Amino acid sequence: MLPRRIWAPPLRPFDSYSMTVVSDSRISFGSDNHAGVHSAVLDAVARANVGFAGAYGADPWTARARELFRSHFGEAAEFFPVFNGSGANVGALSAAVKRFEGVICAAQSHIDADEGGAPERVGGMKLLTVPTADQKLTVDAIKTRLARRGDLHAVQPRVVSITQSTELGTVYSLAELREIGNFLRAEKLVFHMDGARIANAAATLGCTLRECTTDVGVDLLSFGGTKNGLLGAEAVVDLQGEFKDDLRFIQKQSLQLASKMRFISAQFIALLEGDLWLASARHANAMAKRLSEGAGKIRGLEIVHPVSANAVFVRMPRFRIETVQEKFPFYIWDEANPEMPIARWMTSFQTTEADVDAFLAELTQA
Amino acid sequence: MLPRRIWAPPLRPFDSYSMTVVSDSRISFGSDNHAGVHSAVLDAVARANVGFAGAYGADPWTARARELFRSHFGEAAEFFPVFNGSGANVGALSAAVKRFEGVICAAQSHIDADEGGAPERVGGMKLLTVPTADQKLTVDAIKTRLARRGDLHAVQPRVVSITQSTELGTVYSLAELREIGNFLRAEKLVFHMDGARIANAAATLGCTLRECTTDVGVDLLSFGGTKNGLLGAEAVVDLQGEFKDDLRFIQKQSLQLASKMRFISAQFIALLEGDLWLASARHANAMAKRLSEGAGKIRGLEIVHPVSANAVFVRMPRFRIETVQEKFPFYIWDEANPEMPIARWMTSFQTTEADVDAFLAELTQA
Amino acid sequence: MLPRRIWAPPLRPFDSYSMTVVSDSRISFGSDNHAGVHSAVLDAVARANVGFAGAYGADPWTARARELFRSHFGEAAEFFPVFNGSGANVGALSAAVKRFEGVICAAQSHIDADEGGAPERVGGMKLLTVPTADQKLTVDAIKTRLARRGDLHAVQPRVVSITQSTELGTVYSLAELREIGNFLRAEKLVFHMDGARIANAAATLGCTLRECTTDVGVDLLSFGGTKNGLLGAEAVVDLQGEFKDDLRFIQKQSLQLASKMRFISAQFIALLEGDLWLASARHANAMAKRLSEGAGKIRGLEIVHPVSANAVFVRMPRFRIETVQEKFPFYIWDEANPEMPIARWMTSFQTTEADVDAFLAELTQA
Amino acid sequence: MLPRRIWAPPLRPFDSYSMTVVSDSRISFGSDNHAGVHSAVLDAVARANVGFAGAYGADPWTARARELFRSHFGEAAEFFPVFNGSGANVGALSAAVKRFEGVICAAQSHIDADEGGAPERVGGMKLLTVPTADQKLTVDAIKTRLARRGDLHAVQPRVVSITQSTELGTVYSLAELREIGNFLRAEKLVFHMDGARIANAAATLGCTLRECTTDVGVDLLSFGGTKNGLLGAEAVVDLQGEFKDDLRFIQKQSLQLASKMRFISAQFIALLEGDLWLASARHANAMAKRLSEGAGKIRGLEIVHPVSANAVFVRMPRFRIETVQEKFPFYIWDEANPEMPIARWMTSFQTTEADVDAFLAELTQA
Repeated sequence: MLPRRIWAPPLRPFDSYSMTVVSDSRISFGSDNHAGVHSAVLDAVARANVGFAGAYGADPWTARARELFRSHFGEAAEFFPVFNGSGANVGALSAAVKRFEGVICAAQSHIDADEGGAPERVGGMKLLTVPTADQKLTVDAIKTRLARRGDLHAVQPRVVSITQSTELGTVYSLAELREIGNFLRAEKLVFHMDGARIANAAATLGCTLRECTTDVGVDLLSFGGTKNGLLGAEAVVDLQGEFKDDLRFIQKQSLQLASKMRFISAQFIALLEGDLWLASARHANAMAKRLSEGAGKIRGLEIVHPVSANAVFVRMPRFRIETVQEKFPFYIWDEANPEMPIARWMTSFQTTEADVDAFLAELTQA
Repeated sequence: MLPRRIWAPPLRPFDSYSMTVVSDSRISFGSDNHAGVHSAVLDAVARANVGFAGAYGADPWTARARELFRSHFGEAAEFFPVFNGSGANVGALSAAVKRFEGVICAAQSHIDADEGGAPERVGGMKLLTVPTADQKLTVDAIKTRLARRGDLHAVQPRVVSITQSTELGTVYSLAELREIGNFLRAEKLVFHMDGARIANAAATLGCTLRECTTDVGVDLLSFGGTKNGLLGAEAVVDLQGEFKDDLRFIQKQSLQLASKMRFISAQFIALLEGDLWLASARHANAMAKRLSEGAGKIRGLEIVHPVSANAVFVRMPRFRIETVQEKFPFYIWDEANPEMPIARWMTSFQTTEADVDAFLAELTQA
Repeated sequence: MLPRRIWAPPLRPFDSYSMTVVSDSRISFGSDNHAGVHSAVLDAVARANVGFAGAYGADPWTARARELFRSHFGEAAEFFPVFNGSGANVGALSAAVKRFEGVICAAQSHIDADEGGAPERVGGMKLLTVPTADQKLTVDAIKTRLARRGDLHAVQPRVVSITQSTELGTVYSLAELREIGNFLRAEKLVFHMDGARIANAAATLGCTLRECTTDVGVDLLSFGGTKNGLLGAEAVVDLQGEFKDDLRFIQKQSLQLASKMRFISAQFIALLEGDLWLASARHANAMAKRLSEGAGKIRGLEIVHPVSANAVFVRMPRFRIETVQEKFPFYIWDEANPEMPIARWMTSFQTTEADVDAFLAELTQA
Repeated sequence: MLPRRIWAPPLRPFDSYSMTVVSDSRISFGSDNHAGVHSAVLDAVARANVGFAGAYGADPWTARARELFRSHFGEAAEFFPVFNGSGANVGALSAAVKRFEGVICAAQSHIDADEGGAPERVGGMKLLTVPTADQKLTVDAIKTRLARRGDLHAVQPRVVSITQSTELGTVYSLAELREIGNFLRAEKLVFHMDGARIANAAATLGCTLRECTTDVGVDLLSFGGTKNGLLGAEAVVDLQGEFKDDLRFIQKQSLQLASKMRFISAQFIALLEGDLWLASARHANAMAKRLSEGAGKIRGLEIVHPVSANAVFVRMPRFRIETVQEKFPFYIWDEANPEMPIARWMTSFQTTEADVDAFLAELTQA
């Protein structure tokens, strides 16, 4: 049975419609998207609000962000700022495939399960899915989809897309990445990484961004920013510089070209000029670790995947879920077992130790 | 000959790469996208940065923005916040056409000339273009594209899309809109308005937003915010509530669903809760009027379209352009006549009287 | 491991290039597409070659074929003649899905594995695949793909597509079909049948065409003709008349509208006016039965799926394959076990008892 | 006003539904698609109906046809047999454009007006149309669409597509073709020719097929067969061999890969092995000439385009049309002037001198 997701009850209705909208005061473990914006990022946006500037990237902030991406990913890297993760994934993959080519990926990966069909409808590409236990592809798994190369009745594989860290909070090791990268280079296939949470993975691996992307052979990266404290900014990064001429046009055509781009680029400057990207990811990971360690001691809760990034998956009795969820929103990920479904808890740069402890106290009480 | 556009020389290189990037200090008449963000909008974004909130629109700011759109456009209106104008246009039109249906529009309108082929490639729809003198469609012009309804060899017209105000800064009168609206209702066609500058048009017409959209029969509106002082936010508005069930899914699939949507919605609250939308548009229009009146008195300059919104089109000698453009960036719109091309000057909420006067002084001197 | 298919060595080069091309004289068990055209069909085509006739279906033969489809499938049925199975499948499915909707089908079914990505690229739809053991969907299997209805991040299921008889030569019983049909009606989902070999299935079930399609709730049928002795003709049949208004335009847009349609329709007249469709299918099935019964007695050969239509899947030692394949072309379907791969043998209206016996003799000898 | 087309009244109902359907006995000047199949073509199809053969082109007839296309178009030529003209055009153009590239063509050319939106919806490409007086593009006309190369807001021109002979029965001279070909080579643009009636053009020009295609720089040809006496067969011809690797896959994906391909290829053998292609086209052209010369002498009829191929466009009083049309079906092409619309008369290989004379007699009488 495929995973089913039960969304949390809607946040409580807010109290007034005045200009100062009253936010919900609950602490959410529902998603790293439930967090706000890091104050340094908001400051950078405000500082970019001076005078006039060229549109569509002809501005100094975008030039600076371009330079920062090169410093992190290598001199060949070219970045294309986009609005969200769907835009990054569909844009990157669209640059790599001809119309009869497809993308090998894990079944139920984000591009397969959560893009609303955009890869197929907007990108026009077939996803060649492979069942996996933990959302991690291996060379052997990839090979099962290469058998029909040259057969004109079959979609031709051109790209392999992996997610780092995965939707299950697991992380590919550098050795695993290198093995895939070497294989794909030998097979003349393109290596795409959905890095919506790449910072969390790098923090776990203890490596630079370049070491877990460019250096292991990744060609195209969807670089995640929003889940790591930005207001709303992701990027397609052409790591080896092979696709940039086309990506300029694809960025526009795929509805991802910001007119006042300086306000997107300024967010990346805040994230990448110092070590904000790393500090925020490390913090989120540490909060997940604290949460899983605490939960592991609570009777009746079972952690079901290694906690390597900022996600905790826990099997818990249904009757407990409802009372806790009302105070601390989170989602049920899989209820194949209706009495003991698997819940997902996400942490972010904004999650505090006090938040975690309050949540653990509530879980213990329930 | 089709209009050619010569982009201004790139803004001068900025001075440093420090976190406080030094912006270009020149005043731009190149685009209303060259302006920054209205301070009230930035404040609203900052005020939304409190605590956790539901993602993808399940937040109080989006609920409040929804209410404001209804107060401006009528009780049936449903808004879908998107990232940019391309996203609004392609999303709106995609909701209205079946795969064998198309969109009647003016040749060289924005959806025809400036969306990078997204209506065709992403939306999958054919544009049934009609040549016009001034980018304004009429019922007679629309009729030329209705002759082949029912003929299975021809794309079937389903939507008529107009731009208000037009790319040439002209404005449809309420009577003109009503005539089109009545005709389309009788013909069972969908009425779409590309309102990237709808506020400027409403300011000119002296009417409410509803009076020049819902009340004249518009079904789907691309509501422009970014050109009117937002950071980056536009909306598809389903004015009659006919398309909303599909638009929810299309918003996601067309890569336009913001995860931290509160920061998009907060911008609309700032714009629509008071009269910021109108004050900003009126100001931009007044600056264009001041500019065109001043320029009309300068020997050798000729205003070529009625200045009804925030755009001024002016025929001017080429030798003058280069010197002025270096100090005040703007674009050449049409150089069918190479010695006397037509330039476009845009104003915005950010343009001051002093800016206009300095520009006029420079023009006079040149 | 996914099935791999090793195509037979190319047919031997022919001897001359003269107008009377010399065909390969070998008997093929490679595909029901390797057969020629039934003589009655060729006669019907020749008889249609009289005088002038309206194009694109405005001709008496198409009118007659329309009537015959109604007599076989019910008064609401509307047929759309197309060129091949890909055209039938993509056309039928395109009529049923909106742009954010998808099709539930068996993983590795023909639409998933063998349409060159046309459902995704041409139709723009995502296939929601379900792993199966024998290519047959069940209500429980379908349910695994219904969990996310209403979730805007997920492609919304709209159609369930099954293949009858399946790519493995298995056949859904009437009870199985009825169960699926009832479930889909209750769920307001569309029931599509890829009937490239529907005649073989009906022959096996001993029922009329209507009893195993319209009467069990099928909405859209891809009706196969080419594999059953036609020159090249398939049809989309809108069994309940729900999609016909759109299908007219989709037939054209999906490149499936024949100008001299009378020569397509004449083939259907030959097939459906008498019982040619049934006699040919029965004969093909009988030949497969004869072949499987004979092969079952040969040491070292193992029949691996029930032989319910015109396909025989047999596990056989690799060393035998090569010698036999040279004389009687056929394909290897699955070589997950390289020493003992699974071969596929197809029979057709053209396969004779002598052909089968000669093949069995060769197999015995090898 | 755009041309409107009034289709002829439907052909009279046929008399019986028996296997020998009674055809309409009227002589049609409505379309070259109203003719049947040349007897030599039907004979070739019948002769191909011997024994078994490889599917999807792995057969001797396709090999022979491939050789014939090379002998007519040059050694680099590769042909891809497809089902109809829409399939040829969309397939050829799809091979040449990336997703952000478009096709320059005459407004109201067949790909613009009569493909049901398939270039946009199935191919995903924008057509960059140019208004013309006579459906013939010139280098100057093409240049109007090249102004925005490199501008990422605009679809990038990649292909120029012309129709030979045009929808108005006019023919590009070899000098005109050469000028276009040279220009496109210099501009690194792809030259596509919609040759649905290329044989009629070659017959008029008195040149070989190669001289008016490969030798003038055409890269991709949609080669027409059906209108020149085939049962139903067209071809994409990759004249310079640049696109063939992709076209194999595109042929399949665009629903144009025939399983029993021998019966398509056999038609081309009949057409191209001797001079049937030329004899049939010459005959059709001669009949159009006879018809236009006769009509030119009839009072009140005015020939409105040069009659260079097999089409005659004639302005005639409406009251005459109805009586004649009842006996000799034809279409009204343009009724911008309702009292004196322009009719289109098409001739074909099947039109006899007696047919023409009977038609002229009826016209004279009316």
